[in-house]
Amino acid sequence: MGTTTILSDLGTEIVIPICAVIGILFSLFQWYLVSQVKLSPEKPAADGKNGFTEALIEEEEGVNDHTVVHRCAEIQNAISEGATSFLFTEYQYVGVFMAIFAILIFVFLGSVEGFSTSSKVCTYDTTKMCKPALMTAVFSTVSFLLGAITSVVSGFLGMKIATYANARTTLEARKGVSKAFIVAFRSGAVMGFLLAANGLLVLYITINLFKIYYGDDWEGLFESITGYGLGGSSMALFGRVGGGIYTKAADVGADLVGKVERNIPEDDPRNPAVIADNVGDNVGDIAGMGSDLFGSYAESSCAALVVASISSFGNTHDFTSMMYPLTVSSVGILVCLITTLFATDFFEVKNVKQIEPSLKNQLIISTVLMTIGIAIVSWIALPSSFTIFNFGAQKVVKNWQLFLCVGVGLWAGLIIGFVTEYYTSNAYSPVQDVADSCRTGAATNVIFGLALGYKSVIIPIFAIAISIFVSFSFAAMYGVAVAALGMLSTIATGLAIDAYGPISDNAGGIAEMAGMSHRIRERTDALDAAGNTTAAIGKGFAIGSAALVSLALFGAFVSRAEITTVDVLTPKVFIGLIVGAMLPYWFSAMTMKSVGKAALKMVEEVRRQFNTIPGLMEGTAKPDYATCVKISTDASIKEMIPPGALVMLTPLIVGIFFGVETLSGVLAGSLVSGVQIAISASNTGGAWDNAKKYIEAGVSEHAKSLGPKGSDPHKAAVIGDTVGDPLKDTSGPSLNILIKLMAVESLVFAPFFATHGGLLFKFF
Amino acid sequence: MGTTTILSDLGTEIVIPICAVIGILFSLFQWYLVSQVKLSPEKPAADGKNGFTEALIEEEEGVNDHTVVHRCAEIQNAISEGATSFLFTEYQYVGVFMAIFAILIFVFLGSVEGFSTSSKVCTYDTTKMCKPALMTAVFSTVSFLLGAITSVVSGFLGMKIATYANARTTLEARKGVSKAFIVAFRSGAVMGFLLAANGLLVLYITINLFKIYYGDDWEGLFESITGYGLGGSSMALFGRVGGGIYTKAADVGADLVGKVERNIPEDDPRNPAVIADNVGDNVGDIAGMGSDLFGSYAESSCAALVVASISSFGNTHDFTSMMYPLTVSSVGILVCLITTLFATDFFEVKNVKQIEPSLKNQLIISTVLMTIGIAIVSWIALPSSFTIFNFGAQKVVKNWQLFLCVGVGLWAGLIIGFVTEYYTSNAYSPVQDVADSCRTGAATNVIFGLALGYKSVIIPIFAIAISIFVSFSFAAMYGVAVAALGMLSTIATGLAIDAYGPISDNAGGIAEMAGMSHRIRERTDALDAAGNTTAAIGKGFAIGSAALVSLALFGAFVSRAEITTVDVLTPKVFIGLIVGAMLPYWFSAMTMKSVGKAALKMVEEVRRQFNTIPGLMEGTAKPDYATCVKISTDASIKEMIPPGALVMLTPLIVGIFFGVETLSGVLAGSLVSGVQIAISASNTGGAWDNAKKYIEAGVSEHAKSLGPKGSDPHKAAVIGDTVGDPLKDTSGPSLNILIKLMAVESLVFAPFFATHGGLLFKFF
Repeated sequence: MGTTTILSDLGTEIVIPICAVIGILFSLFQWYLVSQVKLSPEKPAADGKNGFTEALIEEEEGVNDHTVVHRCAEIQNAISEGATSFLFTEYQYVGVFMAIFAILIFVFLGSVEGFSTSSKVCTYDTTKMCKPALMTAVFSTVSFLLGAITSVVSGFLGMKIATYANARTTLEARKGVSKAFIVAFRSGAVMGFLLAANGLLVLYITINLFKIYYGDDWEGLFESITGYGLGGSSMALFGRVGGGIYTKAADVGADLVGKVERNIPEDDPRNPAVIADNVGDNVGDIAGMGSDLFGSYAESSCAALVVASISSFGNTHDFTSMMYPLTVSSVGILVCLITTLFATDFFEVKNVKQIEPSLKNQLIISTVLMTIGIAIVSWIALPSSFTIFNFGAQKVVKNWQLFLCVGVGLWAGLIIGFVTEYYTSNAYSPVQDVADSCRTGAATNVIFGLALGYKSVIIPIFAIAISIFVSFSFAAMYGVAVAALGMLSTIATGLAIDAYGPISDNAGGIAEMAGMSHRIRERTDALDAAGNTTAAIGKGFAIGSAALVSLALFGAFVSRAEITTVDVLTPKVFIGLIVGAMLPYWFSAMTMKSVGKAALKMVEEVRRQFNTIPGLMEGTAKPDYATCVKISTDASIKEMIPPGALVMLTPLIVGIFFGVETLSGVLAGSLVSGVQIAISASNTGGAWDNAKKYIEAGVSEHAKSLGPKGSDPHKAAVIGDTVGDPLKDTSGPSLNILIKLMAVESLVFAPFFATHGGLLFKFF
Repeated sequence: MGTTTILSDLGTEIVIPICAVIGILFSLFQWYLVSQVKLSPEKPAADGKNGFTEALIEEEEGVNDHTVVHRCAEIQNAISEGATSFLFTEYQYVGVFMAIFAILIFVFLGSVEGFSTSSKVCTYDTTKMCKPALMTAVFSTVSFLLGAITSVVSGFLGMKIATYANARTTLEARKGVSKAFIVAFRSGAVMGFLLAANGLLVLYITINLFKIYYGDDWEGLFESITGYGLGGSSMALFGRVGGGIYTKAADVGADLVGKVERNIPEDDPRNPAVIADNVGDNVGDIAGMGSDLFGSYAESSCAALVVASISSFGNTHDFTSMMYPLTVSSVGILVCLITTLFATDFFEVKNVKQIEPSLKNQLIISTVLMTIGIAIVSWIALPSSFTIFNFGAQKVVKNWQLFLCVGVGLWAGLIIGFVTEYYTSNAYSPVQDVADSCRTGAATNVIFGLALGYKSVIIPIFAIAISIFVSFSFAAMYGVAVAALGMLSTIATGLAIDAYGPISDNAGGIAEMAGMSHRIRERTDALDAAGNTTAAIGKGFAIGSAALVSLALFGAFVSRAEITTVDVLTPKVFIGLIVGAMLPYWFSAMTMKSVGKAALKMVEEVRRQFNTIPGLMEGTAKPDYATCVKISTDASIKEMIPPGALVMLTPLIVGIFFGVETLSGVLAGSLVSGVQIAISASNTGGAWDNAKKYIEAGVSEHAKSLGPKGSDPHKAAVIGDTVGDPLKDTSGPSLNILIKLMAVESLVFAPFFATHGGLLFKFF
């Protein structure tokens, strides 16, 4: 102890918002660059460099074909409108749910001290007086709503950016892979930086505003801040589940009739479900992922802050140390900014083969730079020695130990990223083996794909286990929370390469629909194949960080519920553990069945249109896109409620009726079980998708022997891809929200459960 | 305390062996009845009733066609020879492994006290002297080998009985469903009773022999008896994995070429893999299941005994109370005997629709009768009050509480059975929905099937959780162990209805191969559809009991390793938990990939034969069955080693390097995660199989609209069925051995780990 931090409190107050603002400015600049690709062909020469001269260079690709540009703009509008209207519908329904839940938070937390307005003795430092529980209830409700709104904004902005960028990527693809890659990647960066900076800024402002009321009561201050994480994750849950059902119902439905029955290409404009499919990519993969990672970020910050508030940082009111998690994130924005330049400015992607290495380099560069960043922050923003609350006791921690905690999380993220790439990219043998198994039909393809997913769990789990062991041993739950933050510190880059995938996917769709030449489609397909891998990597990060975050939140919950051990060898805990491990299966059953049911409806509608609209197959009549959009919308709104309710209500029911010990078991069980299913589902799906693309692309001799499109192995590969869709885009990625959300919800309601919970055991 | 038992020690000494002998005699009698169906057509009239007269009644079905009988006998011989030769090969390889492991046990356990031959102070009752650790090492090794040998005998006998019965079932099917059902069921009963009685008798004799040396040192006596469970389960693991790979490589290979490519029926004699497929049913489903349930039985008995030995039963040397687990099993044999008569003598199955209810009634009758049986045993074989060791303390338990513990396990088994039936029988909507999803192709079929499997986990887990809560709360780990025994107390009936399935399956295969009329095949198919459901029920029991057994063993391990809490909130335990939860995925990845690889080889060979043997498709030339048998044999022998090693070595490595806390985490993690995958895998597979059978049978209007064989929905259903094969018959059922085996192995090595384990943490 003794020593103070090198960085002054004033410095901290300045550094964090400045980094956030830099991030936002950088994001806007990238947006400006993307906007230079014009969708209005009337005045192409006006912009100088980007318009006229380059058009002359590659005229052969039809750069000056104004009708194509027009059509692209039209399609983009249709997609954007569909996505906007869906999100508004979704937000209306979820809004009602959120309002009810906000009331619950207020009532439950307010009831802890019987809605008393008088100050109370603090829970941890019993020599001080803290603000009344009623006010914590009020502020928790406010921060819950703030988190939810920030999450909505994040998802919505992401969607807007993606739909703004996809047609532009298509147009640039006419000029070559390199140009298209840069537009798609820049657009991803817009989203990544905007979300990371926005999340940081809102949290920072909220803390400072709440501090006006709370003053020196940091325990209460950061207790109420946890609502921010809960709000973010609740929205993310509905975003992921609703968006996931939407996108996959449309995708599966479109593929089953279009590709399998009618033998027309993917994204063919004759397919009535094609617009719904493209809308889905934006509401599911983009908006859902944005909300999800924002939630992880908010939760890991909250978990770290709430533990810090009852450690020496909070006890001695050391603001700079207290803000350590936010400072790490701030530096992360700067690091990601430099990293982005490596992809867009320092190096150039010249051909298809360089796409994947370039994206991979993003991971490596950001990790290496961030390691230095963390070292600096740990050196200047932490005292050389301090104590951390460790289930009742205070544990002495050195600043270099905390550096190792953050670092181990960061590097574990990189390892998870690499392993995911290995198992889902068609450049390596696992996916090629899966493709090869298509020779003997869809059954072996499914068997090999499932086995691949199961196998891909091994190394990430060891990476997570090692991070947990190191960070937990050094700095208890605070260590785990900052390890999660370490993994998420490069979130801007992670989101950028992740959003890049669906944008490329959409670009391909638009190329197909606009009737552009085959070469364009091949280029966007190559971008998209890399995008499948980066999407899987993004999901890997989301899951890995979710595991760490959940554990940290779980630890914070246990601390606040005032229990000191969670002993597996007690019946209360063990039944929680086994039931908790079951929940991800229950949840997956719901979401997969929902996708299946919605897809069946979509198939019927698409078939009906093909059968009843004359001239549709011949391309002389237009399909009725709107009905398909409506089917996806209705299905996802209706079907997202039960799984959402399962996740939101379980902690409440278990806490109220069985008490905090059983709830601890449930959290631990769902965490250790859910993380496995989530990783395997997302990798299995990614591998199937890329096995199909591997056969379609036919680059190697081996791939050619399996193809071409329409061959029996290719048909088998399409079946695998379709099975993988709900796994990788609906149930898999929702599971990490399940584990995080249950943990943060338990944390927010912990004082209530500790006072009024465990009714069943009280009566019997 | 105070009160003694109503049943005297002498009474106990008499009751147990007598019940076992009754079971064996009943089993032999059933065998005699089955043997009355003659496979030697030369002298049909000599046997009076069963031969001549009935033949006259139903001559229309070709009962007197001697060539068919001849052919059946031939095929049966081929299957029996193939199975025998495979099992011998398997046992040779596993024998080497067992020998090495036996040496490990001796060396590790002997080293606990440095191979000292002098007596030591007892671990729990420090006022007494116990036998030296070296002798416990010797006796543990002996009981390990005994368990392994009993398991081998169980599996081998089961296989012999099944191959003896299958052709007889085929022949009886000519006379009607009723006759065929009785033969198949009686044969199942032969296996069920022989295994249950044999397991009980060997354990009983072993205890009595060991007692001659150990005398009053019951702590050492029952410590060394745990080796029996380990031996049984180790064999079961290899039996399940090896047999599972064998059967599914052949099955998948045969189906992919035969049904999908060549469009010939299942089990068509022209298919070169058909004999291997039928051999597989016997070595995988029958021998594997026999070894598996024997292992569960042996382990739950050992877990109960080892806890009892350090409770008041052991401390006061109350032999009758000590033998309570064995007495429960003894009464179980009598109860199952009566139950069997309900299926074979009291009621008659008159048509196809009565098959499933009749099998279901077996479950209900045995459970109701057994409840009375347990009540009586708990009343006469237990003192009214006693104490049970509860992690360091002694807990007072009443005899009626122990009755409830056993009863809750028993009834949980019934519930699991019912739920499994609901989700896997084609009489209910879940399977019909899966069949319906085949309209839109294989992809939706796979999605719906996976969702069904996930959903089917919910109620069984609640049933298991409630049993654990009740039994754990009443009588700590002893309660959990006897709850497992309760679930397994009707094992003879469980095995009977389980073995019935593969026997019927084989009977159908033989009918097809012998070229018998279509009506015969329809009858055996109906038997087989019910068999799929009972097989799933059997797996449900195996998994449910495995969960309870593992927990009991885990508790016993913790007690012997002298730790009193397993706190999730310590890094050592938590990393164990998350890595443990990953192990079932690793294991499944290995086994599924093995099946996939072996199936690919099989496909190539089958294709080669169809392409190179002239006249094979026309039926004028014979295929080369032997090569396919060899492929399955070689693949399964080679591929069973890595997953086997993973399971056997994990506890050793974790215990030696990370110590008992981490090992506790691994055990808990693999338990709560593995049980979910095991249930969902087995139900998904069963549902797919029966969805296919539902379409094929075409009994309802709905089913007809999906069929007939060869329609697109049927083809999609075949793909689902093929994917389900390795799930339900290889990886799923092996998982319950994984969780049991790791627990019992940890228990056996506990003294070694406690003394010499945790090297890594000692050095750092």
